Amino acid sequence: MHHRYLFLPLLAATFLSPPATAQSPIPEKPLLGFGPAQATAEYKREGQFDSYLKPANLRDWMKRLSARPHHVGSPYDRENAQFMVSLFKSWGYDTRIDTSFVLFPTPKLRLLELVAPTKFKAGLTEAPVKGDPVSAQTGEQLPPYNAFSGDGDVTAELVFVNYGIPADYEELERRGIDVKGKIVIAKYGGSWRGIKPKVAAEHGAIGCLIYSDPKDDGYAQGDAYPKGAFKNETMVQRGSVLDMPVYPGDPLTPGYGATKDAKRLDYKAAPTVMKIPVQPISYSDALPLLSALGGPMAPATWRGGLPISYRLGPGPARVHLKLAFNWTVEPVYNVIAVMKGSEYPDQWIVRGNHHDAWVNGANDPVSGMIAVLEEARALSELAKTGWKPKRTIVFAGWDGEEPGLLGSTEWVETNETLLKKNVVAYLNTDSNARGFLGAGGSHTLEKFFNEVSRDVKDPETGVSVQERRRALQLVSGPPDVQAEARDRADLRIEPLGSGSDYTSFLQHAGIAAMNVGFGGEGSGGEYHSAYDSYDHYIRFKDPDFAYGIALAQVMGRCVMRLADADVLPFSFQSFANTVTKYAGEVKKLAETMRTETDRQNKLIQDKRYVLVADPTETMLPPKVQPAVPHLNFAPLENALTTLDKSVRAYDGVSNRLASLSSSQLEELNRTLYQTERYLLSDEGLPRRSWFRHQIYAPGFYTGYGVKTLPGIREAIEERKWDEASEQIQRVAKTLNGFSAQIDKASAMVPAVSAK
Amino acid sequence: MHHRYLFLPLLAATFLSPPATAQSPIPEKPLLGFGPAQATAEYKREGQFDSYLKPANLRDWMKRLSARPHHVGSPYDRENAQFMVSLFKSWGYDTRIDTSFVLFPTPKLRLLELVAPTKFKAGLTEAPVKGDPVSAQTGEQLPPYNAFSGDGDVTAELVFVNYGIPADYEELERRGIDVKGKIVIAKYGGSWRGIKPKVAAEHGAIGCLIYSDPKDDGYAQGDAYPKGAFKNETMVQRGSVLDMPVYPGDPLTPGYGATKDAKRLDYKAAPTVMKIPVQPISYSDALPLLSALGGPMAPATWRGGLPISYRLGPGPARVHLKLAFNWTVEPVYNVIAVMKGSEYPDQWIVRGNHHDAWVNGANDPVSGMIAVLEEARALSELAKTGWKPKRTIVFAGWDGEEPGLLGSTEWVETNETLLKKNVVAYLNTDSNARGFLGAGGSHTLEKFFNEVSRDVKDPETGVSVQERRRALQLVSGPPDVQAEARDRADLRIEPLGSGSDYTSFLQHAGIAAMNVGFGGEGSGGEYHSAYDSYDHYIRFKDPDFAYGIALAQVMGRCVMRLADADVLPFSFQSFANTVTKYAGEVKKLAETMRTETDRQNKLIQDKRYVLVADPTETMLPPKVQPAVPHLNFAPLENALTTLDKSVRAYDGVSNRLASLSSSQLEELNRTLYQTERYLLSDEGLPRRSWFRHQIYAPGFYTGYGVKTLPGIREAIEERKWDEASEQIQRVAKTLNGFSAQIDKASAMVPAVSAK
Repeated sequence: MHHRYLFLPLLAATFLSPPATAQSPIPEKPLLGFGPAQATAEYKREGQFDSYLKPANLRDWMKRLSARPHHVGSPYDRENAQFMVSLFKSWGYDTRIDTSFVLFPTPKLRLLELVAPTKFKAGLTEAPVKGDPVSAQTGEQLPPYNAFSGDGDVTAELVFVNYGIPADYEELERRGIDVKGKIVIAKYGGSWRGIKPKVAAEHGAIGCLIYSDPKDDGYAQGDAYPKGAFKNETMVQRGSVLDMPVYPGDPLTPGYGATKDAKRLDYKAAPTVMKIPVQPISYSDALPLLSALGGPMAPATWRGGLPISYRLGPGPARVHLKLAFNWTVEPVYNVIAVMKGSEYPDQWIVRGNHHDAWVNGANDPVSGMIAVLEEARALSELAKTGWKPKRTIVFAGWDGEEPGLLGSTEWVETNETLLKKNVVAYLNTDSNARGFLGAGGSHTLEKFFNEVSRDVKDPETGVSVQERRRALQLVSGPPDVQAEARDRADLRIEPLGSGSDYTSFLQHAGIAAMNVGFGGEGSGGEYHSAYDSYDHYIRFKDPDFAYGIALAQVMGRCVMRLADADVLPFSFQSFANTVTKYAGEVKKLAETMRTETDRQNKLIQDKRYVLVADPTETMLPPKVQPAVPHLNFAPLENALTTLDKSVRAYDGVSNRLASLSSSQLEELNRTLYQTERYLLSDEGLPRRSWFRHQIYAPGFYTGYGVKTLPGIREAIEERKWDEASEQIQRVAKTLNGFSAQIDKASAMVPAVSAK
Repeated sequence: MHHRYLFLPLLAATFLSPPATAQSPIPEKPLLGFGPAQATAEYKREGQFDSYLKPANLRDWMKRLSARPHHVGSPYDRENAQFMVSLFKSWGYDTRIDTSFVLFPTPKLRLLELVAPTKFKAGLTEAPVKGDPVSAQTGEQLPPYNAFSGDGDVTAELVFVNYGIPADYEELERRGIDVKGKIVIAKYGGSWRGIKPKVAAEHGAIGCLIYSDPKDDGYAQGDAYPKGAFKNETMVQRGSVLDMPVYPGDPLTPGYGATKDAKRLDYKAAPTVMKIPVQPISYSDALPLLSALGGPMAPATWRGGLPISYRLGPGPARVHLKLAFNWTVEPVYNVIAVMKGSEYPDQWIVRGNHHDAWVNGANDPVSGMIAVLEEARALSELAKTGWKPKRTIVFAGWDGEEPGLLGSTEWVETNETLLKKNVVAYLNTDSNARGFLGAGGSHTLEKFFNEVSRDVKDPETGVSVQERRRALQLVSGPPDVQAEARDRADLRIEPLGSGSDYTSFLQHAGIAAMNVGFGGEGSGGEYHSAYDSYDHYIRFKDPDFAYGIALAQVMGRCVMRLADADVLPFSFQSFANTVTKYAGEVKKLAETMRTETDRQNKLIQDKRYVLVADPTETMLPPKVQPAVPHLNFAPLENALTTLDKSVRAYDGVSNRLASLSSSQLEELNRTLYQTERYLLSDEGLPRRSWFRHQIYAPGFYTGYGVKTLPGIREAIEERKWDEASEQIQRVAKTLNGFSAQIDKASAMVPAVSAK
């Protein structure tokens, strides 16, 4: 499904030395984890690796993999898995298909009609277009629907709820509008889609429609497909509404593998399945519904690009929504291909991308999957020259990502103990297009990733991909981003929330992860529609696959350096710096909420809101909130002081690592890569124990969007002050455990002799 | 025409005492300029005045005055003037019609057609609507046009220029788009309309279209007329494009009265007449033109509410625009009604509103004009009880405001010497509707106006109109406005730019002025269209004329207090405080430009803009700007210190004013009200010497929007550093002259005997 906002707010770094090119590595340029001679050899191998990469392969494989719809349970999903197995095998990988069995609902009945004040029946289908033959494969396509919507047959007045996030319901409440017993219509955007029906149901709505407004995703962005890249009047964004912020993966097997004989919940009891019916629709289906709404005007910022007066309702528009699904368990086929490590076979580098799509999925996921394939093929070419990775490399093509990260989550849950022991890092991609490098991940890998992005050339400008990213931040970033891009040595990678297959590795198993892609110059409206096709891709995304090659160069370097480094290139300074930044943010959040609550309460008490209301309209004052107490952040601050000390100590011994023996190194490396495990807390986050990571999580009310220090931050946001204090303690304890592991690593290095 | 933005960013004041009501004045409440006994009498008179005010009069007169189109030169314009003369005379005023003879072009030929790639002929007419009979008076209406457009017959490719302000052309330039030899199409909004063709012509465009985009002014704001208040598909905003920021008034008689036999320029040589043809159009006429544009997508913030992909062009749309006008000289009829002062007949309070409209003008200007009439009637009722104002009261109904403030400007220019000698203050209104008090003016009147707004009740909430305004600022103002509303005793009135008849009084003659109106709850799209009708007004603006009465209460108090105060209620503290604030702003502006120029130049030199550009699109770097020098603000700062001293000295003697004789008071008062004259500089502003005021002016590139300390501010904005330094000197000198007048006033008060 990919995180659509990957390319927005990244940060890049300043290097005074000119960027090296892959063709002409500068041997004296140091490389984290490698001695000078080893670095030179590594640079040489990377040059060889680059020379093997062929755009024509990417093109051929995209054509092949996106030729037919290949969603979970479809014949072509399985064919694609088998095709990739045959490729990996032909390149010498130890390859197998890993199968899980997961709940995957498909539509049996979809009906949406306006029943008053006029009649209209929604089409709910995407029209084939000229010039894009795959759009006509309607026999094999899943029609537009939201996976894990509830079954339902409801008729009620309609209410327009903007993006359908909690703040929108506060606005409705001030206008005296309650959605209880109503059907809501929300725009796509502003949150992950699954948040919309969840919040609607929390407020008592009995049905939910989600549409793509042409202002955000349609003609207002550019010409409609097929003339241009953007949503035409029948295009619909499919997608899952599984309550993944509670737990992703098969809803019937929470926290454990969905093996053939696993114990399963009844789907009606599964907590992550939506309880109300949800249907995504096109803007041409939305137009008659929205036009029929009365009630007050929607707030100015809610109004979209349709040529109407956006009103809130409720009614007089009444809507009948009837949805029924086949609640079947389907196999998902993960492709797993292994190149065994020569020196440390029990230390694994896992590199993955999903292969299932909502329809043909040329961009999502094939544009990322083909980079994985080409990386694997190039490494196999390197292997023919005699190279063997020190560590084991595992390539993965995940199935069932679209409905809920099903394939990767079940694989992680099934093999959790082994993976926690062995996996050094998980490297994810999803979609890819022309433009700017976007990277999120564990900040212990930030310095490492900066070295990688320094060493790959941007195809359009010839500078490094990092340099181009930094230019973007300097030119159009907000002031704080500009300042960091100017003053901070390293590109600050983004924290990861959710939205792709890194989730279970990072958030559940505590495996350091990266998620990488290019984008920003290949926008369009094809996402999760029948028009995410090869034709669309080569017209609008990456016509010559130059950025597919760049992605393979970046990810290939990540894999190779992690596989061959003498000392694993984890670095703790950036992590400490970043967590300190997050701690400052949550403290400031509490301060701001205190000031703002006081201000607001005073305005309410002084009746200022009553005085400004237009008596001809309903506009109630906001509700008085209890005053925000001062929280004790000292445990967190003390933990950060300890962390800083541990980080300095490890940096102090890092110049003496060369003296370690191979077995000492193995133990040191294991300690290093397992530090991320210590960022988990066994209890997990409040009300969602599956999410154990204490630094990064998807937001309970954002879905994909990350919340850093999530236990603390969300407790503050939701005004749960006791919980906030508890979570401060928990994060502090977690960070202290993490610092202890760094100390353990430092202690493995022999002290300097007291000469 | 009225300033449409009057209601946005005002500031109110805090009073600890409960607001007094008109019905129950609190006699012990002090009143600036009045002793305790006089204050009590004044409050009593004001209660009487209020008791005379009748909404039914407002309703009847609005019906009468807006019954037919009454633009300059029309029969009904003259009839309205005569009708008002008869009213004033019936109330005992010494009334006459003052006539000037001004250039007033009307359309002879209007043709707009798309000639390629498809054909379309624009309607350029407003369709009559059911339920509003005046919309069908097409025989008497002026059709949609822009007065003082040039004649022209041009055919060229079209370019979309957003609002058509200078910054928009910088964006176009970065995209490689030049409007030279092209016709531009601009949205209404973002500046006064006359700026659009002026800036287009500066960039070489040969024609200009201005349309009302439905996002800013149409269905996106609410239901279209007649269902709702907003622009329907044929409605067009008429209006003047005379280059009023150079000089308003008759373009043929710059700086002197347009008397019958005045020497006149040839209209083709008049510098304020546009040199290119300009035509305003509806969004239904704009749609085919905009739809036919190719070229790059318009920047996201430029896109409007039509259901299209907004593109910039140029072409393939080619447009033929042919306009011809009758360049005739027409009479304008100012109605002047005088109630002579009993004690100081040579000290005049002038209270005015214009009476001409673009079409029927129920809101603009009649809603303000009827308040003037009712104030005059109520004062005549008071006079029947034996009251006589100490000073002379002059009521004015201006003609020819819409085409370019013609009536008021020619009156001021013709009578400049006398007016400068005698006029205490000019009090203007224009349009009026339900909502919040909006007030702009000379800051020497700020404290005075705060007392007035404290003493009038808001009809909807029962608190004072000032209190309601402050609530608005506290609830929805930006942070600095909130802070002032909380912490500053007085409402900070807005500085005046242009857009109504106060302009020549304040900016040219240095007469302290106020411009006042209510609004914010009566929005709509009728402005300058054939639908600004009685029916529209009573449905959407002020159905029971409660705010018309409130306006009469505010302005009646202003007139009465100024007419009867023992010491004129000019107060210099607010002025000093406000000018000091402006000085801080221009200093900060220079600082910000310095930092931003350095940052930008570095980005350009480091090729960051080149790196971020998508190679498939044109996006040139901005141009390198010379570094911003440090300016010497010391003369201004010294002048402010002097001003502060003078203000304190006057405040120090203000408790001893009661001891002055009547003739001493007359002299003191004359000194006080003439202080504003000393804010003029004989040289005027650079390149527009008609504008002499050194503190307030309409922006050369905003049209209505004010620039404070305009000489300094605009020189900095336009990067004219030598000019900025000169203007700092000039403002400093002007302020020193002003301070000397305050000192002169202070010196008139006998010193305390050295007991």
